[in-house]
Formats: sequence, C-alpha cells, structure tokens
Amino acid sequence: MKKGRAGNHFEDFRCGMKIQHATPRTLTEGDRSLYIGLTGSRAVLGTAETNAQQLGFERRPLEDLLVFNTAFGKTVPDISLNAVANLGYADVRFLADVYPGDTLVVESEIIGLKENSNRKSGVVYVRSTAANQHGLEVLSWIRWVMVHKRDHGAASAEPVVPAMNAVVSPGRLPRRKYAMDVREIVTMTGTADLWDDYAIGERIDHPGAMTINDSDHSIATRLYQNTARAHFDGFAMAAAGGQRLVFGGHIISLCKALSYDGLENGLSIVAINGGTHVNPTFTGDTIACATMVLDKIILGVSNVGALRLRMIGIKDSSASSIVFPHPGQARQDYPSNVVLDLDYTIVIPKKS
Amino acid sequence: MKKGRAGNHFEDFRCGMKIQHATPRTLTEGDRSLYIGLTGSRAVLGTAETNAQQLGFERRPLEDLLVFNTAFGKTVPDISLNAVANLGYADVRFLADVYPGDTLVVESEIIGLKENSNRKSGVVYVRSTAANQHGLEVLSWIRWVMVHKRDHGAASAEPVVPAMNAVVSPGRLPRRKYAMDVREIVTMTGTADLWDDYAIGERIDHPGAMTINDSDHSIATRLYQNTARAHFDGFAMAAAGGQRLVFGGHIISLCKALSYDGLENGLSIVAINGGTHVNPTFTGDTIACATMVLDKIILGVSNVGALRLRMIGIKDSSASSIVFPHPGQARQDYPSNVVLDLDYTIVIPKKS
Amino acid sequence: MKKGRAGNHFEDFRCGMKIQHATPRTLTEGDRSLYIGLTGSRAVLGTAETNAQQLGFERRPLEDLLVFNTAFGKTVPDISLNAVANLGYADVRFLADVYPGDTLVVESEIIGLKENSNRKSGVVYVRSTAANQHGLEVLSWIRWVMVHKRDHGAASAEPVVPAMNAVVSPGRLPRRKYAMDVREIVTMTGTADLWDDYAIGERIDHPGAMTINDSDHSIATRLYQNTARAHFDGFAMAAAGGQRLVFGGHIISLCKALSYDGLENGLSIVAINGGTHVNPTFTGDTIACATMVLDKIILGVSNVGALRLRMIGIKDSSASSIVFPHPGQARQDYPSNVVLDLDYTIVIPKKS
Repeated sequence: MKKGRAGNHFEDFRCGMKIQHATPRTLTEGDRSLYIGLTGSRAVLGTAETNAQQLGFERRPLEDLLVFNTAFGKTVPDISLNAVANLGYADVRFLADVYPGDTLVVESEIIGLKENSNRKSGVVYVRSTAANQHGLEVLSWIRWVMVHKRDHGAASAEPVVPAMNAVVSPGRLPRRKYAMDVREIVTMTGTADLWDDYAIGERIDHPGAMTINDSDHSIATRLYQNTARAHFDGFAMAAAGGQRLVFGGHIISLCKALSYDGLENGLSIVAINGGTHVNPTFTGDTIACATMVLDKIILGVSNVGALRLRMIGIKDSSASSIVFPHPGQARQDYPSNVVLDLDYTIVIPKKS
Repeated sequence: MKKGRAGNHFEDFRCGMKIQHATPRTLTEGDRSLYIGLTGSRAVLGTAETNAQQLGFERRPLEDLLVFNTAFGKTVPDISLNAVANLGYADVRFLADVYPGDTLVVESEIIGLKENSNRKSGVVYVRSTAANQHGLEVLSWIRWVMVHKRDHGAASAEPVVPAMNAVVSPGRLPRRKYAMDVREIVTMTGTADLWDDYAIGERIDHPGAMTINDSDHSIATRLYQNTARAHFDGFAMAAAGGQRLVFGGHIISLCKALSYDGLENGLSIVAINGGTHVNPTFTGDTIACATMVLDKIILGVSNVGALRLRMIGIKDSSASSIVFPHPGQARQDYPSNVVLDLDYTIVIPKKS
Repeated sequence: MKKGRAGNHFEDFRCGMKIQHATPRTLTEGDRSLYIGLTGSRAVLGTAETNAQQLGFERRPLEDLLVFNTAFGKTVPDISLNAVANLGYADVRFLADVYPGDTLVVESEIIGLKENSNRKSGVVYVRSTAANQHGLEVLSWIRWVMVHKRDHGAASAEPVVPAMNAVVSPGRLPRRKYAMDVREIVTMTGTADLWDDYAIGERIDHPGAMTINDSDHSIATRLYQNTARAHFDGFAMAAAGGQRLVFGGHIISLCKALSYDGLENGLSIVAINGGTHVNPTFTGDTIACATMVLDKIILGVSNVGALRLRMIGIKDSSASSIVFPHPGQARQDYPSNVVLDLDYTIVIPKKS
C-alpha cells in the first residue's frame, strides 16, 4: 500500500463513519506561553496562578481557545487536509477545564454530506469530541467544511444535512463552580463591569488592532499540529495564483484577545453557538473587532451569569466602522473586509 | 459607562495618583524558552539548572530582562497605551530573583507631569514596582513617557519634574549571596575574565549582530502582554504615514544577549541607572552594540563586584563604528542610527 | 586581552585539540512546545505523555532533533562562528533519551584539518559528544565544516582527513527497551505500517510542504543558542551581496516533521549515517521531501527493528519531482533545488 497518505477527499466519507484521530496531544505550560506570545491573550484565568486560585480553581486552566484549536488540529489530517474552506461551526461546548499536563484524545463522526452542484467538491458535516486522559469529555463541536473530490465523476449518496440548533440552549451549558467571592475578579482586572453591567443590544468596539505576521500564524497553526496545506505550502498556493491562508482558529484567538478590553471580567467561554470565517485572511492584514451582546442568561448558580455575544472581526478597518450584518446573512453578502462572525457564550461574575 | 477603555491621556493623570495594574502574571519555564528563542540569550544563570546550582542558587532564576519587560508590560494599558514615545528610565533596581511559577503584581505612582509647549502632549513620570506572590518587591523603576492629550485645550496643573539620581548608588544595590566558589563560573562559560579583568574606560565591541523580523518583536511584545498600539496596529501606523515600532524593551534584550560575548561572566543585572531609546527601530533593522566600562564598584561581599556599564545599540552599522556620545547629550544630537543608550550595573565574580 | 572574542579561524585549530563548550543547557517542556510550533512535529513519542507511557517510557522524551540541534548549537561559538558552510555529518549516534529538565554538556575534539587550495579557508573535522547532568553520553557526532582563515598567509600543518564509516554499523546502534506491546502504536497513529511493511528500495513521497518564514528559522536557531553570523546578520550578509541563510539543522527538522506522513510509526532516530546540506535555503523557500528505504536492520530485540532511510529535501518543487541522486555524488552535481541529502536510521515496531 502506498505510504504518506494525503488525506480524505469528499467521496471517501460516509455518514455515520467514526474516526479516531492520530495522535493524542499533551498540552503544557510551554503551550500556554506560546499561546500568549502568539495572541497577546490577557485572559484573567490564564494569566496568573494567583488569579485562578482566588477564583476557585486549584491551578490555572489552559485558555479555552488553545484547547479548541489543538483539538481541531487533530481532526485536520482526516477531515480537512484537502479542504477548500472551513465553512462554519455549531454547538461547540466547552465541557470541562484542561490543565497543563492533560492529554487530549479526539474523535469524530461524519453526520452529513452534501455534494456541490459543480460535482467538484462537497460539504462534510462532522461532530467531534475531545476527551482528556481520564476519558472525561472536555469539548464537543460540529463543523462543516468544503472538501475537494478526488474524482469529479465519483458518485455521491443522497445529501444529508444535519439539523443544528442556532444556539446552545442554557440547559446544555456546562456548570462549573467558582469561588463564592468570584466578584473579587475586579481587583485583578481593575475593571468593575460584571454580568449586571451589560445590556442586551449593547455594542463594544474593542480598541486594539493586530497586524498578522507570517510566522505568527504559521507557528500557531503548527503548535496545533494542524497540517492543512493551504496554511503552509506557499509554493503550491502561488502556483495556483494565490497565497497561504491564515488558519481561521488563529483569527478567533486574536479577536478574543483583542476583546479583553471591554470584556475584562469574562471567565471562560462555555459555548460557540455558531461561527463563520466569512472571508480569508492573509499575512499583513490588521485585525480589529467589535462585540454585540445578544442575550443575558441566568445560570443555576448565584454568583455567575452568562452572556451570549456576537463578535465581528474585520481587516484593515477600525472596529467602529463595523456594521453588524443581518443574522443569517448569506456568506457572499458580507462586506469583503469582514473575516469572522462568531456567536459565543461566556461566563462572567454577577453582582449579588 | 462605555466599555473597552482606550487608556489614559495626559490630562487624566495627577501627581500622587496610584494605580494597581491589571492582571497579575505568572512566569514559567515556557516563558524562559520563548525568551531564549526570541533573543538568543546565553546568560549563564538562565541557560542551565546545573550552572545555577553551582553558583549558589536552588534553581535557575528567570532572566532579569524577561522580568523587567513583563512588569513593564503590565503598566502599558494604564500609562502608555497612548504614548508617543517612551523617553527614559532611571533608578531601575532588580531587588530579588524571580523563579518559574512566581507571579508578578505591579503598581505605579505618578511622580511628575509636564505638558509640552505645543499643548498636544505631555511627559508623565512614573515610579513602578513589581512584587511577587509573597509580597516581596522584586523590581522598582522610574520611567517617563510622552503621552498624547485627548483634548488639546485641556488645562494642565503646574509642571512637576521629579528629582532623579543619575546612578543607583552602591548602597542601594541589592545584596544577594552567591556560592563561595562563584568564580568557578569560568568553567561554565569558558571565559576567564572576572571583575578584576575589566578596566574603567575599557571598550568592548560585541561581535554579533541581529536582524529583527516582524514576528520576533511582535511575539516578544505580546509575551509581555504589552498592548501599546504603536507595536501592533500596522494599518493605523501606515495610515499615519509610518509603520509599526519595535518595542524598546526588545532592543534592550537583544543588545544584552549580544553583549554576552565580552561579558560572559556577568551574573545578574542589579540596576539600570538610566537609559534612552534614542531613535526608533523597525522590522528589518540589524542591531549591533558596544559597551564601555563606566565604573567598578566594590560590594560588601568578597567574591563578587559590580561593573557599571554603558551600552550603545546601533542599527545597520558595525559595533566598531559606534562613537560613544557625550554623556547627557541631547536626544536630537545622537546620530540617527543609534537606537539605545543604556547605563546599567551588573554583578560579576571577583578573583580572591 | 581583548574581550568579545569572535570565534576561531582555520589556523587556530590543531588536531587533537579538545574543547569544552560554553555554557551547558537545560531543556524543558517550554523548548518542546516551541519545537512543535516551529516545525509542526507530530512525532508519536513527543506528542503525548500517554503515548510515551504506553510505549514503555516513564515520560515523554524530547524530540531527537531538538537535542541534536541544541547540542550542535553549543559547538558553534568555538567551531563554526566563522564558517563558510557546514559540509557534512557522519557517525551521529543517539545514545540515550533526553527528558525535560535534563542539562546537556557538550565537548569536541578536532580530528582532522585540511586547508583549501586557495589558502583562504580550510575544512575542520570535529567529533563532538553531549552528555547529560549525570555524565551519561546521549549524543555523539562527527561534522566537517569549512572555516575562513584569519590570515591567508598563515602556515598550515599537513592535512589530516579522518577515516569515517559510511554507515553506523548495527552493532553500534543504541539498544533501548520498549514496552512489549509496542506495536499498539498503531492505535495512536492510526497507521498500520510497521517495520515489516517497508521494503528496501521503496520510495515515499511525503505529501506536505512548508514555506519558511524569517522568524521561523531565526527563533529556532536562537532557541538552539546557535550564534553563527550567517543566520542572523542581515546587514552584513546584504553588504556582501547575499542574505541570511537558514540554519541547516532547521531544514533537517522540517523534513523530519514532513516525513511523519508515511513514517508515522517511527519511534526514534538512532543514527545519522551521513548528511549534506547540498544547497543553501533562504526565507520564503518552500520545503518538501521524499524518503527511500536503504536497508532493513534486525536488532537484538524481538519487538522493534531499524530502517535505514535516505531523505532528500527540495525547495520550491514537489516531492514527486525528486530524483534520488547517485550515492556519493559530488556536491556540485546536485540540482540547485536540492537542499538536503540525509542518510539516517530509525527504530520502528515489528510485527510478532
């Protein structure tokens, strides 16, 4: 058998197919440092051991999106090595914290397939889950991705498009315990705004902006052991008249880090309800973002609440110039400088 | 209240104002690795656990300038997010070692304010201190920085310019204990030159040179969680006719790493007496440096002494081409390729 | 004596000269993370703690080439700071695993010297060894390197060219113990090919390709504390009509990482039989590679065998375009896009 397998194409997938992804990955303090260096994250739980302990944790959990991007990377060799584009996310749930030393094991199930009308490619819908070394599920997500066909003439089964909820319902959000005095977070962040201080419909223009260098996204994407060709093979991309694409997960991480200014007291991401990489990002682009509060959710605990947020990432424009697109807007109707439309839910301390 | 605060402007500061900076930061072995990868540091104490133990330490302390740059970064969102330029340092004292796992907490006091005659900006003088998780002060420094006014018409108080000493006097240098046989350092570095072998007025042209890539300084600056816009927002900088500036702390770190060749047996920085980033540095610049021995200081211990050094950093020229500027020379009289003029004090083993 | 020594030139070396290299280096989990971020390595032993334990290790050893490049870097200030080019490797043996927290101490002996006919430079042959903090030898290698003369008129001794074996004989390969059920590796990598599934003469075109960014190789080379000027001083390289060269060790690491697809179940490198950096590599080059199986070696244990492999690295061309050069082909006869010709031996599980 030929070695050096080059990933699956659209016609290699079947609905119900289950895939155990190679090779498990242990995350460490080294990965955390690199994550901070690559994104500039200042998330309060991940920045200091003392913060984490005061907030009720034994030690600092790893940043949610470091976990997400690493788990995602594990799926690439089987799912999206030959991807045209990563189209969207749904029902992403952060179920348990991941700590330095933990090992992620990732598996997937194909839950939908739909060939494109040009018969050159098709959309693959995948449910993936990451567990830690104790078998505890820490992350679960659906994504759909457009994948090339190897043979344009290959036959396809009937299209199956899975039903997906537009939002992770409150009852399915993880419940974690925080220290009783979790609102002392304001002494750590120097910012007083808690759950109570955000209003539905409120808009936050995050003041920072970040220009992406080639090594920034390349190192990040390799750290996640994501091998998708489009991010790394500049020679092949140039031969096809293009250039290397920035990994979408890096854009989410950058926007999340920029959104610290305005959401300082957010503790954790608990869900990504949906998200789309609307346009591609390239080396040299400068990313800015703005957030809108979509909903305020009361959880079954007294000291924290959840905020459902919509974050729009844009390139080479100011955050204030962002026009929040109509929800459910077709991909092709977004302005060409919008790169991310992400609907996600965070936990944040409440006033008494 | 509007969220996503965009930092203080000149008129927001008052003399005597105290600021507790967000959010404390834990440093780890991951940060050390990244520091070595970004600067090429070969400092003997930080490079090997075995070195540190032979020199009388329980374990490897973190590099002095990793601590300095991280602590500095904590002050940026409150002090210098809207800085025009970081003008100078004085009375920087490294009071205790920082180890992997330690958490830095940083606070500042405004000690001087002086509006510029154009009334568009002003100089802010700040005394900052970093303590570890046990409340032990590890670093104390003064810097002054030119900050934009938000409203050019805003009134300003009488100017206050704090008195600052030109040098940290020997009595104020930290006293640390080293192993009795600290001069065995020469078996680690392969270099015999100890305190006794340096002469006042001696000049050392460090042989290396380092070209700065965009991700080098961007990753370093993000690692320090320094959010100053001028380092990151290439779009805004280009719109204003400029480009992203390299963080001055990265230049100090690079020059310090280059100066290893010629100062191999230096153990620790104990003070920065003064320093100026004379001209800006950009991606693609190649940095070289030379050192002059300004003074030799006898400490109250028998096995180590201190050297007061002046290090000049230059871009796109050889170290041998450096002309040491007249002390106290006005900023505008420096040659345009000089980027750093730093007066600092190190501890180095003495012969018996 | 003048400080800031600028490395040895050809006439400074003598056969039999022994050099203890400065300064020992402790490797950590931080270095591992950075190595993954810089190379994209997915090596099964280094990626997850759980993998290592199932394969019979107490914990994850560090990647072989992180150890090799770090140990190599230690020799640069004494051996190759003034190198024209690193010409080749022989008899490289990986004798014991290195773990986070281990400290490498490196020493060398000059075993050959041969002046070039132009009398401007000469070839220096060096045997180097790295030991850990317990004095256990972990790595031993020969390399030869062309070094500038300081004084073209300096006299040279008679040429000495050491005898070198073309291959590390099976009896000199290290013996390590693996868990009895080491072939369960296929559940970790998802790939069934073990020692038995490779045939002598079989060729593997590895499907990936990697474009090298300037910070990628600069950070890697600094992480190894390799100070060779040619990698860092862009100003001097441009003044001489050239540009910075990518460190050859980074190319070996990249090719090794790309070769994961097709050699997924390789456990460790045990030897580099020989190798040459045939042509230089620069920022922006895209690297691809192919492997040919040269030999299958039966070791004195039942559950693993060794494969002797030849890996050719190429720039800006596809792996499938590689023509394996005639063994022993003269350097100048290689196509200009071939950058690496490496003959090395790995251990891989056997079927019962």
